Amino acid sequence: MNILTTIRLKEEQIEVLVSRYPHINIHTCRSLLDVDDEQLQMTGVLISYSTGLSEEMLSKMPNLTWIQVFSSGVDALPLTTIANRNITVTNARGAHKVPMAEFAFGLMLQEAKQLITLHEQQQRNEWNNKIRFEELEGKTVCLFGTGAIGQEIAARCKVFGMKTVGINRSGKQREHFDRIYRFDAEELPLHEADYMILIAPSTRETDNWLNAAKLRQLKQEAVLLNLGRGDLVVEQDLIHALQQKQFKRAYLDVFHVEPLPKDSPLWQLDNCTITPHVSAISSRYNDRCTAIFIDNVSRYMSGESLINEVNLEAGY
Amino acid sequence: MNILTTIRLKEEQIEVLVSRYPHINIHTCRSLLDVDDEQLQMTGVLISYSTGLSEEMLSKMPNLTWIQVFSSGVDALPLTTIANRNITVTNARGAHKVPMAEFAFGLMLQEAKQLITLHEQQQRNEWNNKIRFEELEGKTVCLFGTGAIGQEIAARCKVFGMKTVGINRSGKQREHFDRIYRFDAEELPLHEADYMILIAPSTRETDNWLNAAKLRQLKQEAVLLNLGRGDLVVEQDLIHALQQKQFKRAYLDVFHVEPLPKDSPLWQLDNCTITPHVSAISSRYNDRCTAIFIDNVSRYMSGESLINEVNLEAGY
Repeated sequence: MNILTTIRLKEEQIEVLVSRYPHINIHTCRSLLDVDDEQLQMTGVLISYSTGLSEEMLSKMPNLTWIQVFSSGVDALPLTTIANRNITVTNARGAHKVPMAEFAFGLMLQEAKQLITLHEQQQRNEWNNKIRFEELEGKTVCLFGTGAIGQEIAARCKVFGMKTVGINRSGKQREHFDRIYRFDAEELPLHEADYMILIAPSTRETDNWLNAAKLRQLKQEAVLLNLGRGDLVVEQDLIHALQQKQFKRAYLDVFHVEPLPKDSPLWQLDNCTITPHVSAISSRYNDRCTAIFIDNVSRYMSGESLINEVNLEAGY
Repeated sequence: MNILTTIRLKEEQIEVLVSRYPHINIHTCRSLLDVDDEQLQMTGVLISYSTGLSEEMLSKMPNLTWIQVFSSGVDALPLTTIANRNITVTNARGAHKVPMAEFAFGLMLQEAKQLITLHEQQQRNEWNNKIRFEELEGKTVCLFGTGAIGQEIAARCKVFGMKTVGINRSGKQREHFDRIYRFDAEELPLHEADYMILIAPSTRETDNWLNAAKLRQLKQEAVLLNLGRGDLVVEQDLIHALQQKQFKRAYLDVFHVEPLPKDSPLWQLDNCTITPHVSAISSRYNDRCTAIFIDNVSRYMSGESLINEVNLEAGY
């Protein structure tokens, strides 16, 4: 098995693989562009982030049967070609859930406990405790997306005494949610949300889901977090809603175009917090992804079905 | 029953009391200094924060039998006189646990997810995701104090996948803690702490507990949070340890002298975050305290023992 990886795996983890499966060859490169054609030609398994894999590059890898991406979203991959060639794609679903749930709580608490205001006070040597804090307890979180990440957030919400409502594709009940709605239902619980969190994948069905009509349903004190994909939101509608102060604040980690262009009005809005697509960052991230891959190699070798296989049709 | 309160209670809550117990009189003042001697003389029950009640003021209230403080700490009260006069003190224990646990998580996540760095990047319109985030999952929290607040923090730690060790007076096991140590044990688990959180009350036994010798046991990456009382720490030792960068960062919400004096070196240390004794602030705080008081009035009237009675000897 010839494995090509654009991500540096840990020595110990490579050793685990090679000692178990001596006929495995692992070739590490910084970029696919650095790899010679012969190596590409031999490659059976590719480990990569989901960006930087063009149709042209794919055509140089005729023996490729399996791509393990170290990301959750696969929307940057040439999915149609991959499906036509019958290449299996597995993603890092599950590796993001813990850091993203923690980041979501960091942002909710930044808002509720005015962490930035406190920081600014310290910079002015100012002792001012006439400050209003909200509690998370008793508040309602509405999650658009109830998969692994959504459930991880909801589990923490429950121990914080929050109400959890979820919106997903099937309308099926999920653990840690008080109620679930189908994403295309007529009546959605957006008006109940103290915190509206978007963590759905980007698909044809979810693109532009949060539009002007839905934004108008948010209450004045609502806080919006987008940790999913920029495409989930109609960005122009969002900018307009923020300019009109229709709701309290948006925390945006993802955007239509990334990096967010310098001239985007979002940078300057005083009710919009911008973070540079970092919600899944974790010092433990690559270890978790590699563990998924090693597990999958074992399954591959023994003919079992792989975990985290992407439905190329659905796009996640 | 003549009740004097320096804290404005909600109309609905007063109505509940008066409708149940028609012979209750509630007199509200902004400060005890505004109250005439006759009113003070009649007062049987006092509702107040724990500050601003002098020996002299107490002597003007010969009929006082019960003080309900809307705070957790009672160290500012003239406890010896109160004990000698056999006055019952009940505190707001329990009203702080939720907001303080949430604030503790806000600070841990501010640290782990570099929320201030992200804020500063936005101020510069800077998109930089080459940033290192820690996870809370897998980390160890060491709590000095395992009462209501400590347990509330520990419960959240468990759902975040953290290890919890506690230090308390008795060494007795408490819910949500993996292990408990007596505060005066020879071997304490300070070296294990990724987050060392102080939430013990201020008593003779806990004063100056965290001294130079104990600070040296913290590891280089440790983060210290003091949400309890400034007295728990030898402030000079702490300043020295921070100047020497013996551990990563301190988040201090309480100090020997409050407001923290303008000339304190703590303001300027780049590894010290100062917050102005705000950890318990909550928009729901007074409601919770009043609910405790109303419950206690019912108990008082029916001759039951009160909840949250302070042990005047122990000081909490």
